[in-house]
Amino acid sequence: MSTKLTREYISELRSIIEVRDDRAALEKLEALHPADIAEIYEGLSIDEAKYLYLLLDPEKASDVLVELEEDDREKFLEALPSDVIASQFIHHMDSDDAADVIGDLTEEKKQEVLLHIDDVEQAGDIVDLLSYDEDTAGGLMAKELIRVNENWGVATCIREIRKQAKDLDEIYYIYVVSDENVLLGILSLKALLLASASTRIKDIFDAEVRSVQADTPSEEVAQIMEKYDLIVLPVIDSIGRLMGRITIDDVVDVIRDEAERDYQLASGITTDVETTDSPARLSRARLPWLIIGLLGGIVVAAVIGRFEDDIKINPEMAFFIPLIAAMAGNVGIQSSAIIVQGIASNSLGLESTFRKLAKEFLVALLNGLILSGLLFLYNFFISKNLALTFTVSSSLFMVIIFAALFGTLIPLLLNRMKIDPALATGPFITTMNDIMGLFIYFLVGRILYSVFI
Amino acid sequence: MSTKLTREYISELRSIIEVRDDRAALEKLEALHPADIAEIYEGLSIDEAKYLYLLLDPEKASDVLVELEEDDREKFLEALPSDVIASQFIHHMDSDDAADVIGDLTEEKKQEVLLHIDDVEQAGDIVDLLSYDEDTAGGLMAKELIRVNENWGVATCIREIRKQAKDLDEIYYIYVVSDENVLLGILSLKALLLASASTRIKDIFDAEVRSVQADTPSEEVAQIMEKYDLIVLPVIDSIGRLMGRITIDDVVDVIRDEAERDYQLASGITTDVETTDSPARLSRARLPWLIIGLLGGIVVAAVIGRFEDDIKINPEMAFFIPLIAAMAGNVGIQSSAIIVQGIASNSLGLESTFRKLAKEFLVALLNGLILSGLLFLYNFFISKNLALTFTVSSSLFMVIIFAALFGTLIPLLLNRMKIDPALATGPFITTMNDIMGLFIYFLVGRILYSVFI
Repeated sequence: MSTKLTREYISELRSIIEVRDDRAALEKLEALHPADIAEIYEGLSIDEAKYLYLLLDPEKASDVLVELEEDDREKFLEALPSDVIASQFIHHMDSDDAADVIGDLTEEKKQEVLLHIDDVEQAGDIVDLLSYDEDTAGGLMAKELIRVNENWGVATCIREIRKQAKDLDEIYYIYVVSDENVLLGILSLKALLLASASTRIKDIFDAEVRSVQADTPSEEVAQIMEKYDLIVLPVIDSIGRLMGRITIDDVVDVIRDEAERDYQLASGITTDVETTDSPARLSRARLPWLIIGLLGGIVVAAVIGRFEDDIKINPEMAFFIPLIAAMAGNVGIQSSAIIVQGIASNSLGLESTFRKLAKEFLVALLNGLILSGLLFLYNFFISKNLALTFTVSSSLFMVIIFAALFGTLIPLLLNRMKIDPALATGPFITTMNDIMGLFIYFLVGRILYSVFI
Repeated sequence: MSTKLTREYISELRSIIEVRDDRAALEKLEALHPADIAEIYEGLSIDEAKYLYLLLDPEKASDVLVELEEDDREKFLEALPSDVIASQFIHHMDSDDAADVIGDLTEEKKQEVLLHIDDVEQAGDIVDLLSYDEDTAGGLMAKELIRVNENWGVATCIREIRKQAKDLDEIYYIYVVSDENVLLGILSLKALLLASASTRIKDIFDAEVRSVQADTPSEEVAQIMEKYDLIVLPVIDSIGRLMGRITIDDVVDVIRDEAERDYQLASGITTDVETTDSPARLSRARLPWLIIGLLGGIVVAAVIGRFEDDIKINPEMAFFIPLIAAMAGNVGIQSSAIIVQGIASNSLGLESTFRKLAKEFLVALLNGLILSGLLFLYNFFISKNLALTFTVSSSLFMVIIFAALFGTLIPLLLNRMKIDPALATGPFITTMNDIMGLFIYFLVGRILYSVFI
């Protein structure tokens, strides 16, 4: 793997850049994939990266631009005049990549670049694509595809494919349309290769083709492509006309992003951030949840404050505050994580909410019995304080059951209310469970201490 | 989306099954994709599912079998005799799916099924594939591919492809090999379509082909295919001979599983579980972390126990125990989640560990100042207890910085020690931060209370 080489590789490259040895630099970059070059750029200063970038031929440079992280790309494009962006870079890109790149520009620069694109058809495609929401099938699709008419014969078809194929990196499917451009089905290259020249397309295409409308949310697109193991998915408009196609590599990013976002939300991080972001951005992404946690902590302090006299008399009650709070949080997060994941991957199955709650109740009952049993043994033999022993164990048991049911119910409710259930996990559930858990704990303590003493 | 229809659909299907109306049942299933049928099965009883299953033609039934959840599949296969499995199902499968299905059987049944496969070549392929670890390129690959010799001409090539294509659902690439079966490059269908019949393969194939060895871990395979936007990746042995190919749909599952596993670990769930699993299995998956949490809570209780006299005199110290513990946990999880995710997606960049720590330190400094400032204002104006106000805010500040550094360092250290860093997040970091955080809190309290009073 080239990625393993990068540190040494980069220091070599840097010394070449320092002496501006164009030939040696190009030689070093030649064998690399654009994705590798994009990765190397992140380890270089802006000046070093620019020097290398201008050495590349426009086609490779365009590919590198597509692979760059959004922030780095914006920095690069800011420094370049609009006509250079249009003629050198956009010109070599597929319509979906071009729309992504142009979509990141400022409104003014966007217009300038669009005016500088010579190929009117390409400019039209890009403008069309820019009109779709980023998180829909329209925002994911590319316009380039191979389209043949159902009435053609195989020979015409192959001639047409040769003509259309010039715009495409790779052909996976050929789309068969009616005279009105309505998608009728697909023709696999295999079928085309196996057919004789006189066969008509009508007789060999496969009418069972799955498609999505342009406004389908990208998460649904990902679920469909994942479920049916699709490599390409055609996009149609509301009356069935073929608009474009989505390839699996773009959807892989959607799947990765979605999983990462759920994980980040569960970890209390709001916006999508990466380790390479600036401290201010990283701080901003985390503060909201921390402030919720802080407010929760203040509420908890007020709740415990109601039991100040109990603590003064039985300070050992305070020792187990963190245990109760932590267990409430852990159990709640476990329960909600399973549900959130099930919702995200659409694998909740057909079990009813009631059956899910019943099952979580069983799991909590089992875990609650084991854990409060263990804690009972510890306190019974070590602390030797009967009131404390019974208080801690019985409230732990109740708290575990409460937290499990709460952790299951909240994401299901949020999902039904069309709110992202991943919001439920992390600090929110932990805080709510802390408050309820400690209230239960001190209430049980007050009752049991009055019984035992 | 068919998934939205399933509940009504299933109740209709059930009434058809009840009266054993074969024709109506088949009609209802006919238009469905095997993946949909597999999903429907999960909503049916075993008997209902079996009835439907035996109605399907063997080819569709095989596809459904591949799409079923592992548990359900095992139940089905247990009930079927080995010769039926071999002749009806395995016969219609690609080698990778066949190896997956056979790999789940008991050792005895595995041997029986293998002996009943008539096609010696297929049996050999499956035995080869079974020898690879499930989590490697070998475990992901299929043997079916189109292979042409570099010395052939385009005409011979097309003839050969027609012959080989019968075993394949779809052709994406044609692999070019030497006489010794060493992988030399790929030939795209586009290049083949655009070439004249007299051209030699040698002159039109693309020698720049990325490949992996059979023992490459599947997570690395996923990273490579994701980074380079590959649809298919050839697998070679140690001397470069072509062994098989991996398609993106199998890798999408790896990506989804990996992301889900990290999320589950962070949520304190050890083995891979789903909502549809049994309560006992769900309980077992969660107990380990909960027991760690319980032990942590007992250690915390012991730590606070050292400060029993402080609590007796100043019970208000106890009010803020959950706040300090929760903030330590939240900050630690935020820091570690970013690092764990960066490691998983291989996007940590080339920043050194020192720079990462320095950046986390800055973020923590910023967040710590804001949060302890807010808390200071609250306590100063509401609680009006100077010693408490200074104790809570200054220890919160220290705890946030400690938790951030700890949360960053631990996953990096684990990764360097080749332990899965995702283990670090969740209950482990929370518990460690609780212990350290509360120790800091009470220590600061003891010092400041002696200063202010």
